Amino acid sequence: MKKLKIGLFGFGVVGEGIYNVLTSKQHLGIDVAKIVIKDETKTRNAPTELFSTQAYDILNDDSIDLVVELIDDADAAFAIVQTALKRGKSVVSANKKMIAEHHEVLIQLSRENGVSFLYEAAVCGSVPIIRNLEEYFDNDLLNSVHGIVNGSTNFILCKMYEENQPYDEALKVAQESGFAESDPSLDVEGIDASFKLGIIALHAFGQLIKAEQILRKGITSLHPFDFEYAKEKGQAIKLVANGNTNEKGELESLSVFPTFVKTSSPLGQTSNEYNGVIIGSTLADEQFLYGKGAGRYPTSSAVLSDISAFKYGYKYEYKKGVHKTDLNITKSGLFYVSFDKIYPFDSSVFSEIHQSYIGEERAYCIGKIEHKNLIKHRLLDDLNLSLVSYN
Amino acid sequence: MKKLKIGLFGFGVVGEGIYNVLTSKQHLGIDVAKIVIKDETKTRNAPTELFSTQAYDILNDDSIDLVVELIDDADAAFAIVQTALKRGKSVVSANKKMIAEHHEVLIQLSRENGVSFLYEAAVCGSVPIIRNLEEYFDNDLLNSVHGIVNGSTNFILCKMYEENQPYDEALKVAQESGFAESDPSLDVEGIDASFKLGIIALHAFGQLIKAEQILRKGITSLHPFDFEYAKEKGQAIKLVANGNTNEKGELESLSVFPTFVKTSSPLGQTSNEYNGVIIGSTLADEQFLYGKGAGRYPTSSAVLSDISAFKYGYKYEYKKGVHKTDLNITKSGLFYVSFDKIYPFDSSVFSEIHQSYIGEERAYCIGKIEHKNLIKHRLLDDLNLSLVSYN
Repeated sequence: MKKLKIGLFGFGVVGEGIYNVLTSKQHLGIDVAKIVIKDETKTRNAPTELFSTQAYDILNDDSIDLVVELIDDADAAFAIVQTALKRGKSVVSANKKMIAEHHEVLIQLSRENGVSFLYEAAVCGSVPIIRNLEEYFDNDLLNSVHGIVNGSTNFILCKMYEENQPYDEALKVAQESGFAESDPSLDVEGIDASFKLGIIALHAFGQLIKAEQILRKGITSLHPFDFEYAKEKGQAIKLVANGNTNEKGELESLSVFPTFVKTSSPLGQTSNEYNGVIIGSTLADEQFLYGKGAGRYPTSSAVLSDISAFKYGYKYEYKKGVHKTDLNITKSGLFYVSFDKIYPFDSSVFSEIHQSYIGEERAYCIGKIEHKNLIKHRLLDDLNLSLVSYN
Repeated sequence: MKKLKIGLFGFGVVGEGIYNVLTSKQHLGIDVAKIVIKDETKTRNAPTELFSTQAYDILNDDSIDLVVELIDDADAAFAIVQTALKRGKSVVSANKKMIAEHHEVLIQLSRENGVSFLYEAAVCGSVPIIRNLEEYFDNDLLNSVHGIVNGSTNFILCKMYEENQPYDEALKVAQESGFAESDPSLDVEGIDASFKLGIIALHAFGQLIKAEQILRKGITSLHPFDFEYAKEKGQAIKLVANGNTNEKGELESLSVFPTFVKTSSPLGQTSNEYNGVIIGSTLADEQFLYGKGAGRYPTSSAVLSDISAFKYGYKYEYKKGVHKTDLNITKSGLFYVSFDKIYPFDSSVFSEIHQSYIGEERAYCIGKIEHKNLIKHRLLDDLNLSLVSYN
């Protein structure tokens, strides 16, 4: 078998990890031919002649079959990936932001050029969610995908739950432990999770929906009171990305919300930096996939798996289609909304109120809300409100 | 696209479920052309003209591309599947016993005839373990697979644990609830689990090992005392199938043993009829796959997935090889062995004893045992002994 030649963009922890594995496992027949980096002054643990700062050293090299893109900057990544696909090179990427923003174009380019474009590492690290949705749950009557897809927020929520820490303190611990970035907004506002959910929705339901259309409430306005409430009820609070269809098989909503889950349930047991996704189908009931969602090794593992799949000629087939569409939000769900008792909360957003409570400091309402009214009433932007979904 | 024509063997709960789904989902382009059954006197919920009692009505029909084999009798199934493969028909089967007993021949026949032979439903129902091992964990440094692969015994063990029931009573409850068969020996003696582990070992490690070589201790001699002990230590007892490699990548042992697992761990949380499998790899750490292990819908789901995969030309590639080999047992592990205090247990099987205890009725030893000595000292056959592995 001809050796596979790879061009690597980025030599951070994941890039270096992959280089090390491929170099030490010569029997795999995969050579890293060139590594493009931004900063040529850094010391690197690989032969100097492999490195370049010129993207075209890879993109113009016809002997390179596969580009592995592992850089942070989503715009630069898009330029690289686009050019690579146009030149008939296959691409493995872990860049969820780039994929979420340019999914349609990238799929089109990969199809036009007959090449593979694989990105398992972009969603839930080593958890093989895309491959499973794509390959396995094709024929089955898949009706929902929901889960914890962001390790940073899950780490923070665990700290808030277990140690009664307010958000700011828990964030600080996460940052100090390397589980949250110095600018955590993509994570804590649920944006990262909505990128991933958009990618999942395409492979699960065949619908290509912009991340901006996904209903999203982050974790920044959750209050210790909410965690006390959850504990009393035997629940944890997790940031859950959810997509589900109605009885006709139509997508009802795509959302990322803080959500009550039973502490004893699979998602309730998904702690700290772990990810867990539940695939619901009419026939198989629920499948749970669980593992590390991010970090050097889990991401490397997913990238290596894609490289290996490419060697066997694997392409995503998008068997459920690639239907570009606007999200038609028809779902109505049960929510808990809490706020400072003096805050003038307008409860008319609820179509039904089941419980309302006013205590010494904090108040809450529980009832039904039509998802589309969350936008209309601006509940998702209001930082004075804690919103927790009952899924 | 040309319609796919299927010949179905067996019209039990799974067969009928699949017939119903394929018939109601015409857009899938899959027709059930013929159904071969044993008993033609039973009333069936499908048009009479579809049924036959003659296997050759399917096997001789050149228009049928795919045989879906769903009958209980492993010998009859083997005759059918063998003939189908020889005639160039692809086969989907859920028959783990048949596969475990004839795996090599069946793989060879499917290769010689260039057809697919798929059997996801044979291992852990709807949990896509074979597909994941085959497709996803190829390049990664996979070093262990262990899990709960038999729902009947898991149900019984949960009853023994939760309700302090002795084995016989728990078995009776499982039988009454439909979770154990009237002759439960294949399940409770761990034979079913060893069939599955053998199949897993081929896809995980590329080694084709006879089920008889798998070290196996069932659950029949577990005693309520053992569950009390486990509880005190925050552990559950599960029947765990395990295969793992040593640092050189060589398979150390394949075993099915009652095993202590932390109650809070993924396997500890796998209750009743559920199955859960952990795939351990150097890079991705641990992946956990969880779902319903058997029953009408989970099995149907896996069979449908295989049918769908076949439509897309899917074949197992056995990328890790098909190396027929004898198991070279080199592992040494920690075990708990308990027995009636008057039983003359020969503790020389232990290479190290860490604890020994004698109480009013029951005694136990905990220490290291070389796996191969379990056979030499006949510990696996001795029904007077409870043996629980610390994994």
